[in-house]
Amino acid sequence: MLNQQTAALDRLFQALADPSRRVMVERLARGPASVSELARPLAMSLPAVVQHLQVLETSGIVRSEKVGRVRTCRMQEGALRSAEHWINERRSTWERRLDRLGDFLAETDPQPKKKPRKPKP
Amino acid sequence: MLNQQTAALDRLFQALADPSRRVMVERLARGPASVSELARPLAMSLPAVVQHLQVLETSGIVRSEKVGRVRTCRMQEGALRSAEHWINERRSTWERRLDRLGDFLAETDPQPKKKPRKPKP
Repeated sequence: MLNQQTAALDRLFQALADPSRRVMVERLARGPASVSELARPLAMSLPAVVQHLQVLETSGIVRSEKVGRVRTCRMQEGALRSAEHWINERRSTWERRLDRLGDFLAETDPQPKKKPRKPKP
Repeated sequence: MLNQQTAALDRLFQALADPSRRVMVERLARGPASVSELARPLAMSLPAVVQHLQVLETSGIVRSEKVGRVRTCRMQEGALRSAEHWINERRSTWERRLDRLGDFLAETDPQPKKKPRKPKP
């Protein structure tokens, strides 16, 4: 189970590690789009876009459905949640540690040092 | 400037796309550690750990400093912020869209359909 979650996170972060794929996710966050709509802002061939799309689908961020000749892509609900959650957890562990460090320093140094007096000109 | 940010995000997500590197970041979120401490829970050689460490340093998540024979690694302040921010933005764009869709559906269908009555046994 843990290994499955780990592999899922690998795929999520891997999918987000490419600028073209992030542009595609940015577009899909605003609503469903066809493959050619996704390709429009990207300077690459349609097959290359389809390859990136496959990476996004494998990661679970996007799903697509072909109706007639048009493949429509959508963002998956909650897809980014586990990546967001992982980062969030790390940041808050780290911030709690900094808080504890701050408390410790405040306790061990109750008498703040006086500022050195400026020498008279 | 935008290209620099893009490349920085590439490196961040790439760094997080490996389970051993995530274990290292999890450890460092709890406080500084030496390379051998980082290696302890990982089933790999010290040179392999050092290679992962280099990826984390290039991404800006971690920095390390060698004093005498010991290299101490620390998490960098705010390092994960831009990855977190990017994911956050996408999720909220997507959720706002779902809210608007919900409002639209509520407006266009003021009379909810009645549930079909269960046939009597």
